[in-house]
Amino acid sequence: MERVDVVLGIDIGGTNTEFGFVDKDGKCVLEGSITTNAQEPAERLFERLFAKVTEMELQAGDGLQLVGIGIGAPNANYYKGTVEQPPNLNWGIVDVINIVRGYRNLPAAITNDANAAAIGEMQFGAARGMKNFIVITLGTGLGSGIVVNGSVVYGHDGFAGEIGHVIVVPGGRECGCGRNGCLEAYASASGIRRTVFELLCDDNDASLLRDIPFNQLTAKDIYDAAMQDDAIALKAFEFTGEILGETLANSVAYLSPEAIILFGGLAASGDLLFKPAQEAMESNMLNIFAGKTRLLPSALTNGNTAVLGAAALMWNDLAAAKN
Amino acid sequence: MERVDVVLGIDIGGTNTEFGFVDKDGKCVLEGSITTNAQEPAERLFERLFAKVTEMELQAGDGLQLVGIGIGAPNANYYKGTVEQPPNLNWGIVDVINIVRGYRNLPAAITNDANAAAIGEMQFGAARGMKNFIVITLGTGLGSGIVVNGSVVYGHDGFAGEIGHVIVVPGGRECGCGRNGCLEAYASASGIRRTVFELLCDDNDASLLRDIPFNQLTAKDIYDAAMQDDAIALKAFEFTGEILGETLANSVAYLSPEAIILFGGLAASGDLLFKPAQEAMESNMLNIFAGKTRLLPSALTNGNTAVLGAAALMWNDLAAAKN
Repeated sequence: MERVDVVLGIDIGGTNTEFGFVDKDGKCVLEGSITTNAQEPAERLFERLFAKVTEMELQAGDGLQLVGIGIGAPNANYYKGTVEQPPNLNWGIVDVINIVRGYRNLPAAITNDANAAAIGEMQFGAARGMKNFIVITLGTGLGSGIVVNGSVVYGHDGFAGEIGHVIVVPGGRECGCGRNGCLEAYASASGIRRTVFELLCDDNDASLLRDIPFNQLTAKDIYDAAMQDDAIALKAFEFTGEILGETLANSVAYLSPEAIILFGGLAASGDLLFKPAQEAMESNMLNIFAGKTRLLPSALTNGNTAVLGAAALMWNDLAAAKN
Repeated sequence: MERVDVVLGIDIGGTNTEFGFVDKDGKCVLEGSITTNAQEPAERLFERLFAKVTEMELQAGDGLQLVGIGIGAPNANYYKGTVEQPPNLNWGIVDVINIVRGYRNLPAAITNDANAAAIGEMQFGAARGMKNFIVITLGTGLGSGIVVNGSVVYGHDGFAGEIGHVIVVPGGRECGCGRNGCLEAYASASGIRRTVFELLCDDNDASLLRDIPFNQLTAKDIYDAAMQDDAIALKAFEFTGEILGETLANSVAYLSPEAIILFGGLAASGDLLFKPAQEAMESNMLNIFAGKTRLLPSALTNGNTAVLGAAALMWNDLAAAKN
C-alpha cells in the first residue's frame, strides 16, 4: 500500500481544539477533537493533544506519512512561532512551535485563524489561482487574512490584517479591544445581536426576537427569524451587510483584491448578508475599482474548515520551501 | 574616465515634465524640465522629451551610461505599462512603455507618482532597510504607495494604494472622484483650504485668511499664517492632522507597517501637521500596534524628489532582475 503524505492541522479555540490529518488536496483523512481547558497551561493541552495524535497514527498504520504541522490559534505570531496573551486562554506568551517540536521533529508553523482561513481558501477553496484577495472571518468577532502577491500580509511585527478593528463609526459601540466603533462591533455574530437590540429599541415592528434576552440571542436565532420574514431580523441583516460592504469598498482602495471571501458562521446566511454587502460595496466603490472585486462565499466546505486552514498553512510553507 | 551607470527618471505632471539622470546611490547628476502641454497627445511630449535627453547625453559625453528608464505619471499602470484616462492630461489610454522603447531600447517601467515616491524612499530615503511601510503623498490630492515584504502592492489590476479615496466621513465633502467624504477631501493641500473656509464660517476668530478668496488661498498661505499664530490656520492644521492620524491608525490595522512616511508639500509643514497626526494615530491605535509604527517625514531631500522616485522604480526593477 502506498503511503499518503499528510499534514497535521490543529485549530485551537477557546472551548475545543480540533485537529486532523489533511492530504495535499485538502482531504481530511482522520480527525479528532479535545477540550481546550482554557485555564490550563499550554503544555498540558499539547500533552493531551499528541496522545490523541499518536492514537490516530496507530489507527492509520503504515498508510499515512506525517510531513508537517500547521496550527491556527488566537493571537498567534507566524514570525515568532508564539501565541501572545490570547484573550480566551490563560497562557500569557507561549512558544508553541518549541513545544510542538518536543513531540514531533517536523516542520511546524502557526498563524492566527483568519490567516489560516486565507491560506486554506488559496490552497483548497474559493481563492485557488488568486494572488491578491482578502478573507473576512465572521464569527463571534471579525478576523481577516490579507493575501498580496500570493503571500499572507503579516506586516513588520506579524500582526497585520486586523480589519475587524478598523474604526468605522467614530465614537460608536464599545468594542472588546477597549476602543469604540470598530467594524467587529457591527459586522460579526455579536455585532448583529447588538444591532437587533438597537432596532428593538428604535422601531416598533412586532418581532419574534422581542421574547429572547440579550444573553440568549444567537446569530442563528436572527437568521431563523429573518427566514420567517421577521422585520427586525431582516433590518438587522440589511444594516450588518451595509456597514460591512461600505468598509470593504475602503479595503479595495487599499489593496485592490481580485476577491473578498466571507468565511464563518454569519457568512453562511447567504443572500441575507451578501446582497446588502455587495450593494453597499459597489455603491461606495472608487470608479476605477467598480465591478472588479468579487464578493464570494468560502468554498472550504469539505470538513472542518479551521483544521483545513491550519493544514493549508503548512502545505503552503512546504511548497514554498521546495521552490 | 570610468563610466557611471545612470537611470533616466521622468516625472510627468499636469503642468511640467521633469527628468534627470540618477545614479544608483540616488544622486541626480543632470536634470531638465519641459512643459507637459496637457492638451497635446502623449507622442508629442516624448518627442520633445527625448530631444532634450539626447542633448543631455551629448553634454555628458562618455561619462554616463544609460541603463534604464523609470517613469512616474498620474493613473499609470505598472503591469500594463500604460497611463489610463489621467484627469489632467488629454491622453485617453496610452501605452507609454511602447512609446519610450521607440526612443531607447532599454528596460523601462512606469508607475503612479505615489508608488514611485515609495520606491524612492526605500532606495534612497527614509525607508532604507524597511520591508513594510506606507508613503502618503500630500499634494493637491492625497496619494499613497504601500510596500509589503519589500514590494509595492499593486493589487490584481495594478491600481491598489488609493488611501486618499478611503471614505472617512460618510456623506462628507464632495471629492473629485465623484463620491463624498474621501480622506483626500480633508488631508491634502486642497483639503486644508476647504477646512479653513469651514472654520472661517464656524468660528469668529480674527484671521489673516479672511482677506483671501478661496481660489487664491494656498497651503503656503495657511502655513505662513499658522507660523504667525493665526488661530484659524492653527486649527486647520490641527483638524487636518487629526483626521489624517485617525485614518492612519486604521491603515496600521490593515498592514502593520514599520513606518508611515509623509511626503510632499503639505508634509513640509513639520510639527504643525505631524504633532496632531501622531497624537491622533496613537490615541486611535489598536493596543497590539501601540507605539510600534513610526510617523516620519520624507528623507528624499536631495534634488527633485519625484524624479528620484521615478529613477528608483527602475533601479529597484534592475536589482530584482539580477536576483
